Amino acid sequence: MKKIGVILSGCGFLDGAEIQETVLTLLAIDRAGAEAVCMAPDIEQHHVVNHLTGEAAAGETRNVLAESARIARGDVCALGTADIDSLDALVLPGGYGAAKNLSDFAFKGAECEVNAEVADIIRTCYEAGKPLGFICIAPAIAAKVLGDKQVELTIGNDRDTAQAIEKLGAKHIDCPVWNTVVSSRCRVVSTPAYMLGPSIGEVAKGIDKLIADIMSLL
Amino acid sequence: MKKIGVILSGCGFLDGAEIQETVLTLLAIDRAGAEAVCMAPDIEQHHVVNHLTGEAAAGETRNVLAESARIARGDVCALGTADIDSLDALVLPGGYGAAKNLSDFAFKGAECEVNAEVADIIRTCYEAGKPLGFICIAPAIAAKVLGDKQVELTIGNDRDTAQAIEKLGAKHIDCPVWNTVVSSRCRVVSTPAYMLGPSIGEVAKGIDKLIADIMSLL
Repeated sequence: MKKIGVILSGCGFLDGAEIQETVLTLLAIDRAGAEAVCMAPDIEQHHVVNHLTGEAAAGETRNVLAESARIARGDVCALGTADIDSLDALVLPGGYGAAKNLSDFAFKGAECEVNAEVADIIRTCYEAGKPLGFICIAPAIAAKVLGDKQVELTIGNDRDTAQAIEKLGAKHIDCPVWNTVVSSRCRVVSTPAYMLGPSIGEVAKGIDKLIADIMSLL
Repeated sequence: MKKIGVILSGCGFLDGAEIQETVLTLLAIDRAGAEAVCMAPDIEQHHVVNHLTGEAAAGETRNVLAESARIARGDVCALGTADIDSLDALVLPGGYGAAKNLSDFAFKGAECEVNAEVADIIRTCYEAGKPLGFICIAPAIAAKVLGDKQVELTIGNDRDTAQAIEKLGAKHIDCPVWNTVVSSRCRVVSTPAYMLGPSIGEVAKGIDKLIADIMSLL
């Protein structure tokens, strides 16, 4: 059974992993007959946002790994302890966690840095020729780590985000929510998901296609 | 477009709503061409559990409505403000939140009480002939609220839980994860979901069938 690593960034789209995208990713992997291996960095979240009001809670802290465990039903390992060699592919769902916890793209755009453990596993998988999938805003991480490969990516059609991604060396391609952009040369697949919405069913189409594309590259 | 109310109980299966079951419910509703209306009681969680270790965190509190907003991407209303008349059906996903926050079934079994707002909306919908869906452990709430109707329910095949449900007056019927039990007389549908597992794909089959059953009752 093929193993697909899934890197989570917390639990909730404003300060962690986009929950619906993550669950849809796990569902698509299971239905494709593969095994999802959930991983997350064992670090504090950048902040905690009340998802009812949209406001950051002063003084509250949550751990990215422990919150990610909520989506994964406890079945998640610290990124630093992951058995990368055993993985056949790697996927990063979106949510602001990708741009606030796994990187600081939400604050610094094209001047961003990526968490060292996250950058390492992406580079290691890339160099081993393993397919990589990036959902929603996560392609910004791909642009930072693999920008020197001129990788083709999509985050949908948001001009500011697309420009930041191009500044990092990647090529941005506009894409509707139900579709993917496949960089065959780099073996990288991306889909806009909730960068475009507008509904969970439409987002699921794009994520299903992303996992199917990755399976076809294995 | 038919509106299906979805009552959430937090965000994480050990102290709130089972995230995967909830997302699969929202996906099935969207794919059925209906609209999900997410609701949750504006109360404190019974406790907060670290989903990595399984241990309750001393002194930490979280609000059921605010945490539910993580799954619903902010689109959730307080149960007390919900427009119940506008709903065509009602669904309760599982997770310990149903048995710790929406009721105290996890602690008191057949001696449990159900949150008054939750009991009210279930009774109101039942009396209006609206179909009701209960997933995973949520049928325990149905048993408490509708036990006097001899409603047929399933939580899979766990003997202790089934006995507690029968003590509350309901009839328990064993059921595999991919299937549902339909109480046609009461217009109540239930499916075992993660009471049985064993995978997100199997759980999705049962939840897809539950939503299809509910749509066929509308």
